[in-house]
Amino acid sequence: MSSETARVEAFSDGVFAIAITLLILDVHVPSVSGGHLAAALARQWPTYVAFLISFAFIGIMWVNHHRLFNHIHRCDNTLMFLNLLLLLGVTIVPFPTALLAAHYSAGDRVVAAAVFNGTYVVIAIFFNVLWYHAVNGGLLDPAAAESASSISRRYGVGPVSYLVCLGLTWVSVPASLALNIALAIFFAMPPKAISWEKTMHTATK
Amino acid sequence: MSSETARVEAFSDGVFAIAITLLILDVHVPSVSGGHLAAALARQWPTYVAFLISFAFIGIMWVNHHRLFNHIHRCDNTLMFLNLLLLLGVTIVPFPTALLAAHYSAGDRVVAAAVFNGTYVVIAIFFNVLWYHAVNGGLLDPAAAESASSISRRYGVGPVSYLVCLGLTWVSVPASLALNIALAIFFAMPPKAISWEKTMHTATK
Amino acid sequence: MSSETARVEAFSDGVFAIAITLLILDVHVPSVSGGHLAAALARQWPTYVAFLISFAFIGIMWVNHHRLFNHIHRCDNTLMFLNLLLLLGVTIVPFPTALLAAHYSAGDRVVAAAVFNGTYVVIAIFFNVLWYHAVNGGLLDPAAAESASSISRRYGVGPVSYLVCLGLTWVSVPASLALNIALAIFFAMPPKAISWEKTMHTATK
Amino acid sequence: MSSETARVEAFSDGVFAIAITLLILDVHVPSVSGGHLAAALARQWPTYVAFLISFAFIGIMWVNHHRLFNHIHRCDNTLMFLNLLLLLGVTIVPFPTALLAAHYSAGDRVVAAAVFNGTYVVIAIFFNVLWYHAVNGGLLDPAAAESASSISRRYGVGPVSYLVCLGLTWVSVPASLALNIALAIFFAMPPKAISWEKTMHTATK
Repeated sequence: MSSETARVEAFSDGVFAIAITLLILDVHVPSVSGGHLAAALARQWPTYVAFLISFAFIGIMWVNHHRLFNHIHRCDNTLMFLNLLLLLGVTIVPFPTALLAAHYSAGDRVVAAAVFNGTYVVIAIFFNVLWYHAVNGGLLDPAAAESASSISRRYGVGPVSYLVCLGLTWVSVPASLALNIALAIFFAMPPKAISWEKTMHTATK
Repeated sequence: MSSETARVEAFSDGVFAIAITLLILDVHVPSVSGGHLAAALARQWPTYVAFLISFAFIGIMWVNHHRLFNHIHRCDNTLMFLNLLLLLGVTIVPFPTALLAAHYSAGDRVVAAAVFNGTYVVIAIFFNVLWYHAVNGGLLDPAAAESASSISRRYGVGPVSYLVCLGLTWVSVPASLALNIALAIFFAMPPKAISWEKTMHTATK
Repeated sequence: MSSETARVEAFSDGVFAIAITLLILDVHVPSVSGGHLAAALARQWPTYVAFLISFAFIGIMWVNHHRLFNHIHRCDNTLMFLNLLLLLGVTIVPFPTALLAAHYSAGDRVVAAAVFNGTYVVIAIFFNVLWYHAVNGGLLDPAAAESASSISRRYGVGPVSYLVCLGLTWVSVPASLALNIALAIFFAMPPKAISWEKTMHTATK
Repeated sequence: MSSETARVEAFSDGVFAIAITLLILDVHVPSVSGGHLAAALARQWPTYVAFLISFAFIGIMWVNHHRLFNHIHRCDNTLMFLNLLLLLGVTIVPFPTALLAAHYSAGDRVVAAAVFNGTYVVIAIFFNVLWYHAVNGGLLDPAAAESASSISRRYGVGPVSYLVCLGLTWVSVPASLALNIALAIFFAMPPKAISWEKTMHTATK
């Protein structure tokens, strides 16, 4: 964490931490009585699934934000605003997730899934624009050139992949959601070049 | 970030991050069924607009807070309280925005817009009082004298401009809101002197 | 900020920042129409007063927390738990304030004011216990001995003063609240010894 | 706090701080009038108990998280995800606590207590998996070897103890809750080896 990006990272960490913690406010205690609690708890399983998915997605985005800023050592005005755009995407996540949870079993699952998948198209674009500016605006740590190009390749596939996801919504909602989750797992895994460099770095110490 | 102002900045970042993240709590999932979801989502567009405006305004205020504290290197008791006053303004923002969104199409748009524009008069005054104290209380980094006077000129126009905004409310609500948004964009842009200095600073390193 | 107390301060700043920002959630947009908005906004003045009082009290407590930790340079297990107790008091503040706002004009103002004043007795005790432990547990910066004893004197009057406040509730609710606010202003002002030392410190640099 | 783990700790502190501060949102002002306020406040005692228990549990987990990261000096991708899992457990705590408070006196206390105790089994496992990875992944401060093995012994008893707690639910709900609270107090106390080392460390300075 360089001193120039310290406050941007601290502010972002705050937004990520709050967004991920507010999710539990959507999980309510069922108000039943007379031995029906277990059934009532079981019946609201979509709420738990939505909670876990939102938690995982925001957590994964935090890890990726962390990865980008490991390489960004200078901060300019544009970076601050592009970072705000990305945080906008992060704070929105609970809304499409709750929308999908509420309408998955009803007749509007295509609309809900399109909003859900569409949100990730936008977030993937925001991630790439931020990174593109950092690379081309000379904000990177000079020592990070190699892993930077590896990161660029990795994030570059995001917008197109999520667009495929969005298109798939009108073919098959379950297939589009499965692809969305698969992409999340892909972005959760460490970029090979980075993990390889870290191993080298540790080995040569 | 000097060590003396570190906790003030950390606390402020926390308040900004929470205020900007709580905004999504006002965006609710529509409870309709039977193919009406798309229409219901479209119908609540004022909620999305209010969300985006609040997000942008709090984000811009965070960037400006960041700019001021880039130059403030000492902290005294008065600064802590003036900073609390400014944070009071920041945490209030969602209320006039929601007020305006709820009453823009109804018969009370003048009252709602006057509260909205009036809030920014107060916030602009708080910004200037904080900065005035930092400049005249000797809390600035001595190296920042030149960009400080550039910042003073820039922020000095705030209270009067927002007062014009407020007065315009009784003439034309849309015009007053357009001016308010234009002012936000003006304050979002980097002060020229600062960006010029940064370029110099980088070039001579 | 010493590295040992850094995480305790960061965590505390987070709690203060969240507690102070959540307050706005209790201020609601009135749902009236047809030109009655101004009157409806005016009618909910107790909500604004409660919001401002809570904001001021939490802000003042943050400033005082900041003052204590300016002198605390070591951290032990007991300090962490006493700090948690103090934060417990901080997070509770919105409840008695809302209680007082809701019941001040009704027949239960004595009960509401007693809960309100009683909360500050407890918080004042928590502040003193934390500080007592820091002083007697050898956690202070050795250079802070003189201002530490000045702080001890100042905070020492807290519990007794707030007990007087609490007792006064059954005599006169307005008088007890006036004393409570006067005490808040007293604790908001900088201890003279400290400000004197700071001036010296700056002058001799 | 090493620079590598700084952002993980800052993010975690944010989540802990928010989770512990959101608890007050579940404590509501009773809407009674005509001298019934005191009785109404007394009647909602389970809400206060649930608030205090959640506050204590999250506070104790924060202290333990702090203890672990005192010894962790390097950060890898797996650590970030295991830490997210632990934070998942932390943010969930208010839900089982509110569940238990709402259903303790009704006919569903066994189900509610089983969910409550079961949550702590899961959290205890998450704590151990995180620590196991830190120890075996070579992420610890080399100087921390001795106190690390003391921590391992201490946390190792967690999952089994909480499983006993869970099993006890079907025998006696009060006994299972008493054991749960006893375990919380056990984990709140400082590990002897660590406090012994700290004393040494201070004495030899």
